[in-house]
Amino acid sequence: MALSDPSGGRSGLALNTATLGHNLDGYGAGWPPERIIDACAERGLAGIVFWRREIGARAYEIGERVRAAGMQVAGLCRTPFITGQEAGTDGEIKASVEMAAALGTQVLTVVTGGTEPGTKGVIESQRILADRVGRIADYASGLGVSLALEPLNPMFGGNRTVLMSVNDALRVCDWIDAPNVGIAVDVYHVWWDTGLDDACAAAKGRVLGYHICDWLENTADMLLDRGMMGDGVADLKAIRHAVEKADFRGMCEVEVFSARDWWRREPEEVLDTMIERFETVC
Amino acid sequence: MALSDPSGGRSGLALNTATLGHNLDGYGAGWPPERIIDACAERGLAGIVFWRREIGARAYEIGERVRAAGMQVAGLCRTPFITGQEAGTDGEIKASVEMAAALGTQVLTVVTGGTEPGTKGVIESQRILADRVGRIADYASGLGVSLALEPLNPMFGGNRTVLMSVNDALRVCDWIDAPNVGIAVDVYHVWWDTGLDDACAAAKGRVLGYHICDWLENTADMLLDRGMMGDGVADLKAIRHAVEKADFRGMCEVEVFSARDWWRREPEEVLDTMIERFETVC
Repeated sequence: MALSDPSGGRSGLALNTATLGHNLDGYGAGWPPERIIDACAERGLAGIVFWRREIGARAYEIGERVRAAGMQVAGLCRTPFITGQEAGTDGEIKASVEMAAALGTQVLTVVTGGTEPGTKGVIESQRILADRVGRIADYASGLGVSLALEPLNPMFGGNRTVLMSVNDALRVCDWIDAPNVGIAVDVYHVWWDTGLDDACAAAKGRVLGYHICDWLENTADMLLDRGMMGDGVADLKAIRHAVEKADFRGMCEVEVFSARDWWRREPEEVLDTMIERFETVC
Repeated sequence: MALSDPSGGRSGLALNTATLGHNLDGYGAGWPPERIIDACAERGLAGIVFWRREIGARAYEIGERVRAAGMQVAGLCRTPFITGQEAGTDGEIKASVEMAAALGTQVLTVVTGGTEPGTKGVIESQRILADRVGRIADYASGLGVSLALEPLNPMFGGNRTVLMSVNDALRVCDWIDAPNVGIAVDVYHVWWDTGLDDACAAAKGRVLGYHICDWLENTADMLLDRGMMGDGVADLKAIRHAVEKADFRGMCEVEVFSARDWWRREPEEVLDTMIERFETVC
């Protein structure tokens, strides 16, 4: 498929700005949201997902600019932690919901945070998570915002997540039982799960986000060594098939944290590569 | 339970020598097998699990010394990798079986190795694993050795394992269908799995090893930052209950890779602490 064909696969493609490096620790080009919006629009992308740190008090203005460029704000990363030692307050969590609403996006991603102090295992923390998310679900619904619970790779258990699989996230969704609480499926976190097909079937209609990247055969860093699609061992077509069987019809969001490789490259090259890979290997 | 009570819980306890640091990268006390055997016997332990690197050509001699001290060799770590870029040859794998037999242990742990070159996902690699383990199962049976497939935490997918859960390991056991092929359950690798109870129930009679440690809330290194039992967030009693429901009647094997903490302490302190923790929190 030619890169110049705007009717191509990229019509279902969104950039998660983490892919351009956030300028974290000196990585990434440090582009402001406006420049990212222009570069994505030029390439015919369908949407952008931002992080709270990039938005500040400019949520409405940035959302309008994205829409004026012919795209959608496909999501916002993310709530403060909900559980664990570093959990945010209800007020801080609601403020992230308000930012999503001001941006004009329907999806706010939830990375849960870690194990609740004084507990062992994950089930008790999952119950506490369900209580706390349940408390803000109504508020978010009133603002038109859905909450996407994102299971993380089990290596992030302890201090970063209490959801290690789609099945875990689905269980917590069932406990909460609110129409605006669903699941985000991220290739990096679930690629290894041989039960993913069945889990996605059980999650029918509740997958709110699909994040793509690849798992490098020799992953050198837990957090910042994700691969570009096609460079790793994840079965990307099978995972996409699973989320589509779950009736997911949203955009595929490219989220590549890569301090060693992609964050050292020019943003234009990263964007062109992710489009080419999306159209050929995803 | 008093530490001086030799009839206490430690009668079901084994040391995996990795807990004393292997003298790896200058860590650990560098004790030879003989000194480890004496220190474990003095403390009333039931068994020891060695690593191939410690044994060399002295397998029979070391096994006899363990038994003369009133203990058993509870296992050998481990086969060369079976799959992936760094897979060993059939000859190398058989040599590890022969070492287990010469030590007089019935259990040889299998860490599978990574994704097969040219494949995506893990199922195809699991099928190749089943073929290769199936080829050596008969040979091992003739020497009285069982093969314990150990699922690893999914963070080790890519270059170190194609088994990410007890369910994965059980599927491969079913494909192989040999009476001397079973599963090793390691707390570090499975603590996060909310399906563990059901998986162990399905693995009834096929759990050949139970490795204990803890998952630290803030795990700083994937490989060498395991916690001593009680210092982390794993629900150790629930996991032990699950393996006992699977009819596991072997020893609990303490395996703590800890370059930052336990490998810097005196071996006597490590041994005394692991006994106390085993008797109180496991």
